[in-house]
Amino acid sequence: MATTVRAQLVGATGYGGLGILELLLGHPNFEVTALIARDDAGRRIDEVYPHLRGRCAMVVQAPDDAAIGTDCDVVIFATPDRVSQQYAADLTARGVRFIDYSGDFRFANTADYARYAERHPSISDTAHAAPGLLGSAVYGVSELNAGAIAEAPIVGNPGCFAVGIVLGLAPLYADGIVQDGMLIVDGLTGASGAGKKPAPVQHFSHLNDNVVPYRVLNHQHVVEAEFTLGRIGESTGATVDFIPHLLGTTRGILNTMHLTVTKATTRPALLERYRAFFAGHPFVRVLDEPPTLKGTLGSNYIDLSVFTAEGGRRVVVMSSIDNLMKGQSGSAMQNLNIMFGLPQTAGLDRGPLYP
Amino acid sequence: MATTVRAQLVGATGYGGLGILELLLGHPNFEVTALIARDDAGRRIDEVYPHLRGRCAMVVQAPDDAAIGTDCDVVIFATPDRVSQQYAADLTARGVRFIDYSGDFRFANTADYARYAERHPSISDTAHAAPGLLGSAVYGVSELNAGAIAEAPIVGNPGCFAVGIVLGLAPLYADGIVQDGMLIVDGLTGASGAGKKPAPVQHFSHLNDNVVPYRVLNHQHVVEAEFTLGRIGESTGATVDFIPHLLGTTRGILNTMHLTVTKATTRPALLERYRAFFAGHPFVRVLDEPPTLKGTLGSNYIDLSVFTAEGGRRVVVMSSIDNLMKGQSGSAMQNLNIMFGLPQTAGLDRGPLYP
Amino acid sequence: MATTVRAQLVGATGYGGLGILELLLGHPNFEVTALIARDDAGRRIDEVYPHLRGRCAMVVQAPDDAAIGTDCDVVIFATPDRVSQQYAADLTARGVRFIDYSGDFRFANTADYARYAERHPSISDTAHAAPGLLGSAVYGVSELNAGAIAEAPIVGNPGCFAVGIVLGLAPLYADGIVQDGMLIVDGLTGASGAGKKPAPVQHFSHLNDNVVPYRVLNHQHVVEAEFTLGRIGESTGATVDFIPHLLGTTRGILNTMHLTVTKATTRPALLERYRAFFAGHPFVRVLDEPPTLKGTLGSNYIDLSVFTAEGGRRVVVMSSIDNLMKGQSGSAMQNLNIMFGLPQTAGLDRGPLYP
Amino acid sequence: MATTVRAQLVGATGYGGLGILELLLGHPNFEVTALIARDDAGRRIDEVYPHLRGRCAMVVQAPDDAAIGTDCDVVIFATPDRVSQQYAADLTARGVRFIDYSGDFRFANTADYARYAERHPSISDTAHAAPGLLGSAVYGVSELNAGAIAEAPIVGNPGCFAVGIVLGLAPLYADGIVQDGMLIVDGLTGASGAGKKPAPVQHFSHLNDNVVPYRVLNHQHVVEAEFTLGRIGESTGATVDFIPHLLGTTRGILNTMHLTVTKATTRPALLERYRAFFAGHPFVRVLDEPPTLKGTLGSNYIDLSVFTAEGGRRVVVMSSIDNLMKGQSGSAMQNLNIMFGLPQTAGLDRGPLYP
Repeated sequence: MATTVRAQLVGATGYGGLGILELLLGHPNFEVTALIARDDAGRRIDEVYPHLRGRCAMVVQAPDDAAIGTDCDVVIFATPDRVSQQYAADLTARGVRFIDYSGDFRFANTADYARYAERHPSISDTAHAAPGLLGSAVYGVSELNAGAIAEAPIVGNPGCFAVGIVLGLAPLYADGIVQDGMLIVDGLTGASGAGKKPAPVQHFSHLNDNVVPYRVLNHQHVVEAEFTLGRIGESTGATVDFIPHLLGTTRGILNTMHLTVTKATTRPALLERYRAFFAGHPFVRVLDEPPTLKGTLGSNYIDLSVFTAEGGRRVVVMSSIDNLMKGQSGSAMQNLNIMFGLPQTAGLDRGPLYP
Repeated sequence: MATTVRAQLVGATGYGGLGILELLLGHPNFEVTALIARDDAGRRIDEVYPHLRGRCAMVVQAPDDAAIGTDCDVVIFATPDRVSQQYAADLTARGVRFIDYSGDFRFANTADYARYAERHPSISDTAHAAPGLLGSAVYGVSELNAGAIAEAPIVGNPGCFAVGIVLGLAPLYADGIVQDGMLIVDGLTGASGAGKKPAPVQHFSHLNDNVVPYRVLNHQHVVEAEFTLGRIGESTGATVDFIPHLLGTTRGILNTMHLTVTKATTRPALLERYRAFFAGHPFVRVLDEPPTLKGTLGSNYIDLSVFTAEGGRRVVVMSSIDNLMKGQSGSAMQNLNIMFGLPQTAGLDRGPLYP
Repeated sequence: MATTVRAQLVGATGYGGLGILELLLGHPNFEVTALIARDDAGRRIDEVYPHLRGRCAMVVQAPDDAAIGTDCDVVIFATPDRVSQQYAADLTARGVRFIDYSGDFRFANTADYARYAERHPSISDTAHAAPGLLGSAVYGVSELNAGAIAEAPIVGNPGCFAVGIVLGLAPLYADGIVQDGMLIVDGLTGASGAGKKPAPVQHFSHLNDNVVPYRVLNHQHVVEAEFTLGRIGESTGATVDFIPHLLGTTRGILNTMHLTVTKATTRPALLERYRAFFAGHPFVRVLDEPPTLKGTLGSNYIDLSVFTAEGGRRVVVMSSIDNLMKGQSGSAMQNLNIMFGLPQTAGLDRGPLYP
Repeated sequence: MATTVRAQLVGATGYGGLGILELLLGHPNFEVTALIARDDAGRRIDEVYPHLRGRCAMVVQAPDDAAIGTDCDVVIFATPDRVSQQYAADLTARGVRFIDYSGDFRFANTADYARYAERHPSISDTAHAAPGLLGSAVYGVSELNAGAIAEAPIVGNPGCFAVGIVLGLAPLYADGIVQDGMLIVDGLTGASGAGKKPAPVQHFSHLNDNVVPYRVLNHQHVVEAEFTLGRIGESTGATVDFIPHLLGTTRGILNTMHLTVTKATTRPALLERYRAFFAGHPFVRVLDEPPTLKGTLGSNYIDLSVFTAEGGRRVVVMSSIDNLMKGQSGSAMQNLNIMFGLPQTAGLDRGPLYP
């Protein structure tokens, strides 16, 4: 007999809300009970996004008019930072599970949350509104934490850059072979990661054919990557020098990551280790050639490859994801599947759009 | 009990072959029995297209090594012009149905075929190899010919520009209200319509940020559009002035079409007429606002809208499709569904990729 | 002995202001005496536009702090509609010539101005503030009005779409051979024509790879094209059905224009006529092949070609310009050269940027 | 009295030849005496490149028909590797100076040339045809070698990636403060660096919206960067881990470079050091913010910035150039100016094309 999970979506009109809405609409086991958002409240979602015509005609409700957490099995917060933490205590008390897209529940303690919040360009207050719940939230990198996600009352969906960094490096940190835990990452990202809000740097004439490095050595996702990599397997800590580069393309993140290993290795040995590490994980593909940005476009895959230099002491790892899928809504869908005992691939069996 | 249709794919390594392969892989009722192609024969398809890794590992067979039409219920020719007509007699004799992507079976008679072939830049011999079968082939615009397609031994899948023109104008030609049957079309197309073969005009540095008009007033798809529109409903013939413009984008065709009607009308009346004409057709969306190229990207939709000027005597119709979906493999999949008694939307319920 | 013209630039921080500033900086006979703008007043222009570093370090002055029309030979208004008309009486009284980028001085009478203003999306008051000066302003299509521009106290720089339409059709309207004066134009434009102000339709993720038709049959530049074409040579009036299409590219306008001629002609005859009509005009190139968008990028050229159909009764004209050059600042520079007795090409001898 | 340098251009029909031709056409002191190329010989250059219409109508001569080195003051080889070295002995013997775009004369000795040639994907024979002339050739990074270039019989124009790496790091290597000489570079490049020859990776539909890492840790320009940085100032050698990433854009190279310094420093100190190092060099701009790809588009500028981390021990340097200008023809023009005693900026005073 088919399960039906009833989901309420908060922050429904941003790109994050749109992404999970489309996945839920095509999922055999989910039903969307309410679309809630501050922007565009009162409008039909297919007026906000005309490409949804014929696919979904639900009307967006204002947060104040909607009973958040009522009449549903799960709440999905596709909202900015510091929204879900306001609702967390109430939802938890009522036994309603939720998943959150922001950094609100990615950290197990207030100190790490504060480190993250300090760096975040749009957070002013670094005190968490539900500190007592941080410990029961699970960080939603599905491949690393599936067991805990399955039971979690709260899942903190990971940041888009962090997904590519954490999964790309997990085997090496797990083995404790990254020298000084030190990592250099040049991240390339499409524009959609910044959402749909107009801004000068997102202006077409400015960004087209451009590359714009930003938040050099100061991006908030670094905290999350360091936090996660530093606690994995044999890892003794992680330090990440991270330079994000905004590209004139819509979707995708390609991270190129450089490190030194404590013991010389070879490319074949590393590829084998990666394939073993990710065996049984349907969305991780370890490639012989470098991953490309378009190789994962529109899908939930993460493509990885590994290279060596300097006699096997220097290692380069590259990862490619669709920032709105594996980097956001795809991971959320995968986590929701795990939370409700469904196959991880349910509703996500969509290949990359190529060419 | 579930139907399973066994399909053989010829021309598997071009963009057309790739498109239908991906649709078939995700279809609950189809099984691909062989991938056949001249290019890349002997290689795994996921080596030819690395984004297919983990999705399909079949090896491409050379045409000479493969038994075309054997061990299958249907053959799909995603091949250039003048390939399928060589196999047509044999397949038909053996009762094997097929669908063809080229112009080989789009015309009901040799005269119209010859008019088309003369204009085609890569056809030298305009004599058809299977003239006796033209009459039993059905032109595969699903919305117009579903009844005949259901029974057809041969389906001639339509040209990408023609789909957008024919469906965009069908209601007006059906009503016989286009003055002199005369139509002006400016067509805008992404690069992928020309396939994956490298060529100067397809070179990235040339095409990026460019618009390149080509085959001005001389494109072969015009013959097909004139042939079809001229035989529909009350139509008394059709003449199309068509200017294709190649854009620096990958996918999509947007046609802007201008005509004069014999009796003044209004925009609301036309929109109502269009909605009535296409009622019950799941892939046709008649919009209040102009369609956009990205509004159909990656999906099988055709988005239409209609505008009037000069007191309702002048009409502008716009249509948007993904040239590799509704303009090619999506239409083919829709036709295959019809041919085998499946719902038209089976395997095609994929929304546009936005943003 | 070298002339030096001292120019004051109002509206210096928009794309229009930037464009003329860069041309003036590279011009041997012009000196910029002041940069004036409401936005970014008080900042160095190379902080507003970092690519100007090392080229211009002038500080932008607020309009209220600057003495508009003082200490200069000419004022350039690269401002929105309805700005320069506020200053016109004062400047004219003081004998200061000016050129304006908006529609304020493109029309010889208030009735035509009102027709234009009514259609303009950001004009609410259609009464002109300096009606008495409309008659002494000259419409700045350099190739048509050089004589009058040379003496004009006021030049109304043309709209970007209008330049391509008017020059593309001038020979046919001049000869009075356009049937009913009726013209169909599909215009394709890069995003920069809408300026640098963030807006949803200009958002990178929305526009990239997209085509967005807008203001269908209702664009304000039509009024200007109809006004001009209708008064040229043997013309007996002009009616334009115009559909602008916004493309996912930064610069360029390609207009494809369709009409019927009253007497059958041939392509060679038309090409010859066009070449004769534009003989001696250094920025008009009449090509044998269709013009491309990138063929004029960054330059002041307008590329044209002409095609015929239906036995020479139907004509298609295509024009390509860089919307920020020949469509705006390049035309302004050309007009300023004419106004001050300099060669038309001075400061404009920059070829297209290809690839 | 004005100098006129008579230049012969070999390899005139590639992007490199096109670039220098356009600069020479706009230069007050150069005259092009012959266009020579294997491809398109016999055609007018404005047929090969229609955007040159009205700017240059010279006919391309086949190499066998042209007297290379005759009737000119300098020969410019915009040719692939191993062309100019065939002509070098003859030209030198006749006292004809030349500049070469390939790697033929970038190395002072045959051992380093061989290291480079071994890595080059299209060189099979690593023996140099004119080994005796390597010592008299000068490596053409204008900012480092202007004195020697002024007198050089042969100038080896630098590789596009190498320009951005070498100039970006020169101050640090000159000071001998790069730990172990070790450098990590992620290079992002537009497609035009690979020239105009159609190839699968250059196919529009493949590259648009894509990022394609290639020649991972194995690009031939590394040899040149290591060779140059290792011999500068206090440098004790250089090792470069270099990952080139091909972007879906036409022009530009942005290098992000990571290193550890032997003594902690600060960002302000580094910026000051860079500004002092490059004082008086008109094309080097040291910016407070990160350089962007479009900030140098179409110009000869190199934009640099520097950042620090880990208490000033880790340094990130970013450089942006137009790969066809400062990365190729712009540097060549700058070197030609130096060779003939002209101001470095002559013919190069063209600002970036923005937006």
